Amino acid sequence: MIHSTSRVLVSDLRAHVDQTVTVSGWVNALRLQRKMQFVILRDHSGMAQVTHKRDGGPLEAVIESLTPESAVRITGRVVAAAQVNLGGLEIVPETVEVLNRAETPLPIDEHTGPEHRLDWRFLDVRKRATAQMVFAAQTTLEQGLREYAMQNGCTEMHTPKLMGTASESGAEVFKLGYFDRSAYLAQSPQFYKQMAVAAGIDRVFEIGPVFRAEPSFTSRHATEFTGVDIELSWIDDVEDVMAFEERMLAHAIAKVAEVHGEAIQEIFGIEVVVPEAPFPRITMAEAQEILRAGGWDPEGVKEDLDPEGERTIAAHMKELTGHEFVFITHYPASIRPFYHMRPADRPDLTLSFDLLWKGLEITTGAQREHRSDVLLKQAEEKSMDTEPMQDYMNIFRFGCPPHGGLGAGLGRILMVMLGLDSIREAAFLFRGPNRLTP
Amino acid sequence: MIHSTSRVLVSDLRAHVDQTVTVSGWVNALRLQRKMQFVILRDHSGMAQVTHKRDGGPLEAVIESLTPESAVRITGRVVAAAQVNLGGLEIVPETVEVLNRAETPLPIDEHTGPEHRLDWRFLDVRKRATAQMVFAAQTTLEQGLREYAMQNGCTEMHTPKLMGTASESGAEVFKLGYFDRSAYLAQSPQFYKQMAVAAGIDRVFEIGPVFRAEPSFTSRHATEFTGVDIELSWIDDVEDVMAFEERMLAHAIAKVAEVHGEAIQEIFGIEVVVPEAPFPRITMAEAQEILRAGGWDPEGVKEDLDPEGERTIAAHMKELTGHEFVFITHYPASIRPFYHMRPADRPDLTLSFDLLWKGLEITTGAQREHRSDVLLKQAEEKSMDTEPMQDYMNIFRFGCPPHGGLGAGLGRILMVMLGLDSIREAAFLFRGPNRLTP
Repeated sequence: MIHSTSRVLVSDLRAHVDQTVTVSGWVNALRLQRKMQFVILRDHSGMAQVTHKRDGGPLEAVIESLTPESAVRITGRVVAAAQVNLGGLEIVPETVEVLNRAETPLPIDEHTGPEHRLDWRFLDVRKRATAQMVFAAQTTLEQGLREYAMQNGCTEMHTPKLMGTASESGAEVFKLGYFDRSAYLAQSPQFYKQMAVAAGIDRVFEIGPVFRAEPSFTSRHATEFTGVDIELSWIDDVEDVMAFEERMLAHAIAKVAEVHGEAIQEIFGIEVVVPEAPFPRITMAEAQEILRAGGWDPEGVKEDLDPEGERTIAAHMKELTGHEFVFITHYPASIRPFYHMRPADRPDLTLSFDLLWKGLEITTGAQREHRSDVLLKQAEEKSMDTEPMQDYMNIFRFGCPPHGGLGAGLGRILMVMLGLDSIREAAFLFRGPNRLTP
Repeated sequence: MIHSTSRVLVSDLRAHVDQTVTVSGWVNALRLQRKMQFVILRDHSGMAQVTHKRDGGPLEAVIESLTPESAVRITGRVVAAAQVNLGGLEIVPETVEVLNRAETPLPIDEHTGPEHRLDWRFLDVRKRATAQMVFAAQTTLEQGLREYAMQNGCTEMHTPKLMGTASESGAEVFKLGYFDRSAYLAQSPQFYKQMAVAAGIDRVFEIGPVFRAEPSFTSRHATEFTGVDIELSWIDDVEDVMAFEERMLAHAIAKVAEVHGEAIQEIFGIEVVVPEAPFPRITMAEAQEILRAGGWDPEGVKEDLDPEGERTIAAHMKELTGHEFVFITHYPASIRPFYHMRPADRPDLTLSFDLLWKGLEITTGAQREHRSDVLLKQAEEKSMDTEPMQDYMNIFRFGCPPHGGLGAGLGRILMVMLGLDSIREAAFLFRGPNRLTP
């Protein structure tokens, strides 16, 4: 299958006027008129019009037989045609090769509901510019995050997703058969990235899947999502972690704004605002005080913020500071994991934070407790059995440096950045309690 | 915990002669003499000597109490000292703060065997420059791979590791409880990256975990490893995939050679040779002919190559071409998955390849069969039940472009590049049939 002409992208046609080129893509639309046949061909770079004057020949028959979304390769001459909306160009075809014919009708159309669209996700993504944009933005976002991390001394790690014992809490963990025993899927790389810190990896960076066996059906939850994890050694305090994150995010968001800002504005109608560091900070106690003064007092949520509380405090801080981001700091020890470090004078609090962007939690971070005896005490206080966690507890017995880090959800960042309604739109193939396919 | 002086790395001490600095790191060694106390402090950038003249004061007592591998923060004056081996510098300490005291004795030492070292992997990695180097090289290698992929139009994808049905074959798949049903861990992103291609993502790049429930105990196998996956749309033939891979590898290896070449030579005694593209190619039939002429005829290995065969043919090609890499092409259909495309005139072969580096298989790739009817026929021929694979088969019904790609093992690439004895050394935390910890 050697082709005399190699593929030209639709976006590059302008450079080939009066030349014969080969384009490959999908039949976006067909207009079959009495005298003329028009094919709108789409590739990932754009759309072009293919114009064929009926002549009763074999080419006419091939075009007549096309179906929407068929994969085709078309060789033809690029002609300037001022009347054509698509770039003032058209292709006059010499050959039209059907590489893969699309069945008719397509299983989804513009009226299809969200769940059924997920069933046919590949068609849904292919046909919607908004969906394509998510992955382009994700790619650039990751490049930006990684770039900052690497420039600031991070080593990229791949920690195991298979664990011998359930991490942290037994809840929300998937269990699997592992030869003649059981294994568990990591809820986060938390313990392993701390192990990397104890291994002398000065700063750890990981982007990878995390698994939550949580029966949550909200627009913000998935059972599998992509986590962005950082862990920093030899920190002075949790402020080092927050400073790292705000600079990393500002760097990455600036990159997205630069590369895709206009397209995002056009497609999603949303402005990507590059945040200035430092981001505003507010303690959990202050946040609660402000919220309660405003009448917020949800049942069952005593020490944490509920989503409404998060949105309200973020709006408050936006009004106060003009900033889309806010760090909520000093979460109560009662609602944070046993390994979060606590201020020396306030054992009821933790040196931890959540980061909200436009009111949605996108990150949790903390300084970790690296002193074996204190950690053990904190685990006991939470009635945890440290026996199955012996490998983890061992980290702290042989010279573990002070450290802290964060875990962010890539999908949530994208969701806020692009104004998506649901985390389902921010993943290529969503996984939830009721969805394991396609 | 605000510190008046921020951390200085050991590698930067030269710039601070006659200044007071704070260094943080581990006690690499202690020499407690009658008149003098010496601490060799190690951070990730190097080692420095801390020299304290005994004076009966509290500092003397702190230093006396140190243990090897304790995490310490030392503030002191940097002094030029020509007699000191470590850079002709020493630090005269003012304060020594023990951040985390290491218990004695350490659970591993230089005589510890490989399995027990894996039990204490964090200490093993911390204390060995060779182990640290693996992750530095891995980070640069990934940067190089990603850089090439991005410059050549790839979108970075994160495909699900949780599947609703077992992929390809039911064998070698981990099964887990998923709410009231079962799920399976992806053996590779194969089906999902093909779905991305069908979704109009022109070129797909993914680095992520893959899971193999394979009871293999060789030095090359792991039950969880990091896969590097590429899938390219609108290819003309499998040669496009091989051309992409050889250029991507050459780019990434050149980057590793540039950044770490000297250190790798020094630490591992191995030269990182930047390969020239194109890499040599040989068909499986030719390879077998050459091997059999040389007396190779292992029992039970009729159509595939065994590891010895791979090493022998690679050595043969090295002698012939001077090249460390070789593509073995045209694997028999009988030993390749049903979705590999076959040459029109040779239904017994596939348009597939393996890539060997110094005789070790590091990649498998192919052009995929994108024609629904042919694919179905090939599945039937292998007696596969396509019913559970309906979501996969659907990809090919609505305009799937011709495509092909590859899957490479990151650990295997590192193993060859650094001359490691075992894949266990190429992962931070190895996972095998008998190992789920730490």
